[in-house]
Amino acid sequence: MKKIRKISEKRARKAGQPPGVLKYLEEEPQEEIKISYIDYDKDSYQEEEITEISELKKLKESETVSWLNIIGLSDVEKIEKLCNLFNIHPLVQEDIIHVHQRPKMEEHKDSLYIVLKMLNYNESEEDIEVEQVSIVVGDNYVITFQERAGDVFDPIRKRLKNEKGRIRTMQADYLAYTLIDVIVDNYFIILEKIGDKIEIIEEELVNQPSDDTLQKIYKYKNEMIFLRKSVWPLREVINGLEKSDTKFINSSVKLYLRDVYDHTIQVIETVETIRDMLGGMLDIYLSSISNKMNEVMKVLTIIATIFIPLTFIAGIYGMNFEYIPELTWQNGYFVVLIVMAVIAAYMVYYFKKKRWL
Amino acid sequence: MKKIRKISEKRARKAGQPPGVLKYLEEEPQEEIKISYIDYDKDSYQEEEITEISELKKLKESETVSWLNIIGLSDVEKIEKLCNLFNIHPLVQEDIIHVHQRPKMEEHKDSLYIVLKMLNYNESEEDIEVEQVSIVVGDNYVITFQERAGDVFDPIRKRLKNEKGRIRTMQADYLAYTLIDVIVDNYFIILEKIGDKIEIIEEELVNQPSDDTLQKIYKYKNEMIFLRKSVWPLREVINGLEKSDTKFINSSVKLYLRDVYDHTIQVIETVETIRDMLGGMLDIYLSSISNKMNEVMKVLTIIATIFIPLTFIAGIYGMNFEYIPELTWQNGYFVVLIVMAVIAAYMVYYFKKKRWL
Amino acid sequence: MKKIRKISEKRARKAGQPPGVLKYLEEEPQEEIKISYIDYDKDSYQEEEITEISELKKLKESETVSWLNIIGLSDVEKIEKLCNLFNIHPLVQEDIIHVHQRPKMEEHKDSLYIVLKMLNYNESEEDIEVEQVSIVVGDNYVITFQERAGDVFDPIRKRLKNEKGRIRTMQADYLAYTLIDVIVDNYFIILEKIGDKIEIIEEELVNQPSDDTLQKIYKYKNEMIFLRKSVWPLREVINGLEKSDTKFINSSVKLYLRDVYDHTIQVIETVETIRDMLGGMLDIYLSSISNKMNEVMKVLTIIATIFIPLTFIAGIYGMNFEYIPELTWQNGYFVVLIVMAVIAAYMVYYFKKKRWL
Amino acid sequence: MKKIRKISEKRARKAGQPPGVLKYLEEEPQEEIKISYIDYDKDSYQEEEITEISELKKLKESETVSWLNIIGLSDVEKIEKLCNLFNIHPLVQEDIIHVHQRPKMEEHKDSLYIVLKMLNYNESEEDIEVEQVSIVVGDNYVITFQERAGDVFDPIRKRLKNEKGRIRTMQADYLAYTLIDVIVDNYFIILEKIGDKIEIIEEELVNQPSDDTLQKIYKYKNEMIFLRKSVWPLREVINGLEKSDTKFINSSVKLYLRDVYDHTIQVIETVETIRDMLGGMLDIYLSSISNKMNEVMKVLTIIATIFIPLTFIAGIYGMNFEYIPELTWQNGYFVVLIVMAVIAAYMVYYFKKKRWL
Amino acid sequence: MKKIRKISEKRARKAGQPPGVLKYLEEEPQEEIKISYIDYDKDSYQEEEITEISELKKLKESETVSWLNIIGLSDVEKIEKLCNLFNIHPLVQEDIIHVHQRPKMEEHKDSLYIVLKMLNYNESEEDIEVEQVSIVVGDNYVITFQERAGDVFDPIRKRLKNEKGRIRTMQADYLAYTLIDVIVDNYFIILEKIGDKIEIIEEELVNQPSDDTLQKIYKYKNEMIFLRKSVWPLREVINGLEKSDTKFINSSVKLYLRDVYDHTIQVIETVETIRDMLGGMLDIYLSSISNKMNEVMKVLTIIATIFIPLTFIAGIYGMNFEYIPELTWQNGYFVVLIVMAVIAAYMVYYFKKKRWL
Repeated sequence: MKKIRKISEKRARKAGQPPGVLKYLEEEPQEEIKISYIDYDKDSYQEEEITEISELKKLKESETVSWLNIIGLSDVEKIEKLCNLFNIHPLVQEDIIHVHQRPKMEEHKDSLYIVLKMLNYNESEEDIEVEQVSIVVGDNYVITFQERAGDVFDPIRKRLKNEKGRIRTMQADYLAYTLIDVIVDNYFIILEKIGDKIEIIEEELVNQPSDDTLQKIYKYKNEMIFLRKSVWPLREVINGLEKSDTKFINSSVKLYLRDVYDHTIQVIETVETIRDMLGGMLDIYLSSISNKMNEVMKVLTIIATIFIPLTFIAGIYGMNFEYIPELTWQNGYFVVLIVMAVIAAYMVYYFKKKRWL
Repeated sequence: MKKIRKISEKRARKAGQPPGVLKYLEEEPQEEIKISYIDYDKDSYQEEEITEISELKKLKESETVSWLNIIGLSDVEKIEKLCNLFNIHPLVQEDIIHVHQRPKMEEHKDSLYIVLKMLNYNESEEDIEVEQVSIVVGDNYVITFQERAGDVFDPIRKRLKNEKGRIRTMQADYLAYTLIDVIVDNYFIILEKIGDKIEIIEEELVNQPSDDTLQKIYKYKNEMIFLRKSVWPLREVINGLEKSDTKFINSSVKLYLRDVYDHTIQVIETVETIRDMLGGMLDIYLSSISNKMNEVMKVLTIIATIFIPLTFIAGIYGMNFEYIPELTWQNGYFVVLIVMAVIAAYMVYYFKKKRWL
Repeated sequence: MKKIRKISEKRARKAGQPPGVLKYLEEEPQEEIKISYIDYDKDSYQEEEITEISELKKLKESETVSWLNIIGLSDVEKIEKLCNLFNIHPLVQEDIIHVHQRPKMEEHKDSLYIVLKMLNYNESEEDIEVEQVSIVVGDNYVITFQERAGDVFDPIRKRLKNEKGRIRTMQADYLAYTLIDVIVDNYFIILEKIGDKIEIIEEELVNQPSDDTLQKIYKYKNEMIFLRKSVWPLREVINGLEKSDTKFINSSVKLYLRDVYDHTIQVIETVETIRDMLGGMLDIYLSSISNKMNEVMKVLTIIATIFIPLTFIAGIYGMNFEYIPELTWQNGYFVVLIVMAVIAAYMVYYFKKKRWL
Repeated sequence: MKKIRKISEKRARKAGQPPGVLKYLEEEPQEEIKISYIDYDKDSYQEEEITEISELKKLKESETVSWLNIIGLSDVEKIEKLCNLFNIHPLVQEDIIHVHQRPKMEEHKDSLYIVLKMLNYNESEEDIEVEQVSIVVGDNYVITFQERAGDVFDPIRKRLKNEKGRIRTMQADYLAYTLIDVIVDNYFIILEKIGDKIEIIEEELVNQPSDDTLQKIYKYKNEMIFLRKSVWPLREVINGLEKSDTKFINSSVKLYLRDVYDHTIQVIETVETIRDMLGGMLDIYLSSISNKMNEVMKVLTIIATIFIPLTFIAGIYGMNFEYIPELTWQNGYFVVLIVMAVIAAYMVYYFKKKRWL
Repeated sequence: MKKIRKISEKRARKAGQPPGVLKYLEEEPQEEIKISYIDYDKDSYQEEEITEISELKKLKESETVSWLNIIGLSDVEKIEKLCNLFNIHPLVQEDIIHVHQRPKMEEHKDSLYIVLKMLNYNESEEDIEVEQVSIVVGDNYVITFQERAGDVFDPIRKRLKNEKGRIRTMQADYLAYTLIDVIVDNYFIILEKIGDKIEIIEEELVNQPSDDTLQKIYKYKNEMIFLRKSVWPLREVINGLEKSDTKFINSSVKLYLRDVYDHTIQVIETVETIRDMLGGMLDIYLSSISNKMNEVMKVLTIIATIFIPLTFIAGIYGMNFEYIPELTWQNGYFVVLIVMAVIAAYMVYYFKKKRWL
């Protein structure tokens, strides 16, 4: 519920505000803003961290491809300055800062704006964390905005630095594709981890289902509801990129986007399949709990049922009638004991035959 | 059910009436009609409350943007007069008065007609109240009709009054957008409040689920069914506004409408997600109630099961046979007590081993 | 089930028959045919009941708008004669007579054919009755065919007679719209009545759910399944009328049809919502029944559980051992009684603490 | 399951075979092939059974309309010869022989190929039997292929023979329409019979639901799953015929096909409605079974609960304490009996008040 | 779950890698690569196994149709060399090697790329195994890539070798069709086997449902979820092939593809139907388990209920009151025994009458 509430809460706080006014809405300890860039073409490669927005002017004008990475969104002024430098529309600026957007893609005059969700599996809390990544693709630059340090882009940074391969020879659109691709691939890592957890639950379910198992099944069901919300719009976004005739994406890169699209479909299918399976596991849990209960009740009831007639017989001979012939028999007591044993044995036999035991 | 019935009831009362005939159908105490306007352009700002419809003529003819706000719909004659002044189609007049319309948007010759639902969360009754807001957008005026005083438009009034910003420089279509935006944003406030309530239910569910919890889950499930009905058509309305080529909305405002559209999607998704989660909570409730019951039954049955064989043994030695050797033993009584204790201990051990206890 | 079977039954009876051959298939007492007409224009108004089909010729040729109303479909010959007079296609004639058509709309050369379902709530049997209304719209006439006397058209007849308003100045297409409108509005009356019934069930559900409540919920669920079948195609019909470019409907009337369309959507939504709510009520019923049962079982089991150990103790001192020291104590009996009372008290306390009581 | 398996089984047997190779796959006793034809126009009528394929040449060349009816599909050679005479495509020949096709419609150069399912309700086994009917429509001939003798076409044969009406004056396409119409109408006969059975089950459900009732509900649910599979594609087929611009169907016949289409929709709706109702009946069954069980358990538990405290009291006075004052009272025994009676009476009263009895 | 996890796992391992870089990701013992070809036209036929990629050059240039079959995908270098020889796009090469693709079809400049799933039913593990088959269709060649030896293509190889029929006279597209056809037909074999298993489960369900039955039902439900994922995209693939205007498929072959499409639909329908039936079987299982439990509980409870009043009576006469008149009666004991027998008999009679026994 918490994740769901967050969205409404943030929006609610903004109700009645004019659009395009920037205000950071998260209450978490604000991360210091950190701006770094990588500038490259086939032959050159340059990596730097900057503090002054004005230093970026040269990047915008240069012919080489530049990748600007901004980490931390709380310093609204700096971000506004940066965005204005690159002519980013005020509504887009607002979407960058307000990090509960739905994944979407919008074309503007000077750039393409893409919002994605980067997932991270928090091992200690067994929880999926979401971070909004905004990607602005211009003619010869890509700007990425992240909420927190720590991302999935490191392999790309390495490839840019070391490799003489395709990525250095391609334009900004290819870089953007690579960033999207790595974010989508990262979903599989999350799904793999969830898959591990679910396999453990499956075993628990067979061996000894407990109330805890139920809680876990529900937890992952909710995680799947949540994942769906991130993943389904992703499909539209990437399909939109592939199908659109924007000038910011060359047709040669579209083939690669189609590949990402295929992966997105696989992510969606996997999420849906896991949902189906969790539904099935829930049914198994419920029926195994009820089976276990039934088993207990049955055995206990049977014990009671065997002793009730015996106790009745004992009650008969506990009556104080003056004349009960059996009581005076020499072996009356033992005869009764034997009769009781026979009755008990027969009942056990009968219940076994009926498969109730 | 009540909210659902209202719609049928109102319509039913109108069956067989000619269209376009105005008749106020609500039985609630009728609010006195109150007509006020705000007239502004970049430089001027004027706010007034009026009583005579004829005073509005000048507004219609002026170049400045005018926002007419009508509160209270029971004085049908005045409303008809006002509508006729602005050439509003009789069918639209009917829709304004009969407040159980589905959200919709219609283009007419002289104006654009938009029906929306404004929600209000009644804290004391823990209930969502709905109010129909009709927005008529003309060339240089916006007319809003509300059922009751008290609305979500105050921030806009303030922005109009104080701010020298964008809103004062834009046309009537931008004002209409702002009104729609604030209504949609208000949905998030409602959702946030419902989110709070549901979180409380979630805790109740874990700690001590009661019959009351069930009632609440159903209540919010019904609220969600109801919210869905208000929200889904909203999507079409706003999409319709964005996509239509009406002359009453400039393309510069459409970008803003797209922003509202994104929010609408988020509202819908949140409503759907809450529905899914409530479904899950219902399952948890049912299975936890049944678990609790099982636990009770099990413990009680086990107690009975332990004592039944012991009572049987006591019954044996309560028999009045003349010859029962054990009865004459010196320590017979204590031996039997010990045997009973051993049996009881073994059964407890066995049940514990079997995890039935 | 009965309503469903009727359709198959009627069709089955006709299997292998050539199309366009008229045969009345209903087994109910056949209503005498009754043909009446209202002929009007802005200035004149004439109302008459006729017996000879040939009298209708003049109507067809006159310039004024004529509304022919035929009640009772068993006199197949007369209907055929009438239909031929107005050039109605044999397949349409068949559809008029065979009253289990799906709502639909067909354009033919000389007229537009519309089939609708008129509902009637039979208060005594608490059942929805259906009657097929066929509407044939020609250049300057509207013909309506009904199965039985008694309809929802009276308000229209009155408006035609008294009012000097819009209806008398408009053409046949407007009359057709009014007829459709009043039929659709009538659905709200039905829904209102069902809403009343369901509110009663809701109260029953809270106060004292019985087997009867279940039966009623299922009954209304089936009614809703049935209503859906009548209402969904209605939507297509009216949308079809609004969108089609038939010459029998002027564009000025289409605006009114759009209004009817909005109402149809509201009917559909209400039906769907009632279905959802009935589903929820079913769940509440089942869980409240099971709760009630659980409560009974729990209390009873607890009583048994308290007395079982006590009976065991009594059994102990009922044993006939020669040497049971307690038996010879002066106050043994009272001590045992007190011990028993303490045990019972503790168990009650324990069960209360555990919230089992 | 059996019906479902048949399709896979047949296909499986054919895996890896080249297409268009004819091989009869059914294991049932093979019906002798029987070829008959009816040749007619407005004035003439001729009906004959033939044995030599070559006799058919003259039919193909004649101007009159010919209806060839082939019964029995095991004599593959003869069918191949016949098909080749009429230039039927090898793939179509294969579909004619392999009788587990989905209903479909294909246009080929020389003819139109339609596959339908003819249903038959086997009263003794209470089972729906399916037979594939292939209809080949050429310029002036219609060829129908059936698996077994016995069909629903007899009324058409009679109409062709006796009637001077429309059918004799129309072309081959009208004949094809009549054949399709009678097959679809036959579905209503099946649905009527199933409706009868379900009404019986409904009564059983109210009066005395048994395990058998459950089996029947599931049986008919499966029948409905099965029927759906036959009926849904039918819709596409007939819609396809109506919408296609094939030269084998004149526009005058399309109006009739639209009529059949309406019937198909009604069949589908009826099947879906029956499914929904069977689902509801299942719920009623389950809840009535559980209600009955609850009732039994409740009454029995109450009996036990009443006697347990009484037995406890008897146990008290069965104790052998030397000093139990009550035992020496003159009327002690009767007092105890009265006390017991009072307790029992109160408990019965209490249970009744609580509505547990 | 395992099958689902595999996909995520493989993708996860690749996250951040540049596209088009070949790396074999499966951990299973790697199959030695085996390259063989069949080269044929109407008159000639040649079959050979090769080791050097360069030998294939002549195939590419020859006019005859060549079918290259590659088994084993671990020798990435060889496959890359081969692919480059036939100008296969790097992204396609990647898809060939990474065997967890969704079935799809892509047109490239020099060839058509089709990915399908070949299923195999592992009898010993009662499990469906999946193998990815990649089919590359060029002008006069077809290349198939498989993971493991053993396939369903043997009948085609035989037909190519022996038959002088159609297959040898047709082009590469027809060969591709035949391969697809045999893969799809093979699905029916799988479905037939699953059908057999399910029929066994159905019998188990009627005769003696056990926990094992439940496990099996769930197992096959999961298999169906899994099969769906393979089969649904197949539909798009084949429809895509039929509808596309690729130069690699002649219109004469499209008719055959339509035939395969029909089969695909049947596979899908069968899978869906089996799912529905498994759902129904699950319901039957649950209700039969609960019925069985109820039966046990009922009988046992009844036994207890009969003896409880009897034991009470015995308790009465076990009381030690000094004055209990009945105790001194001559036949008191026997009278009590008879009374008890009468009570027991009446209760049995009553329970039988109430149908509780």
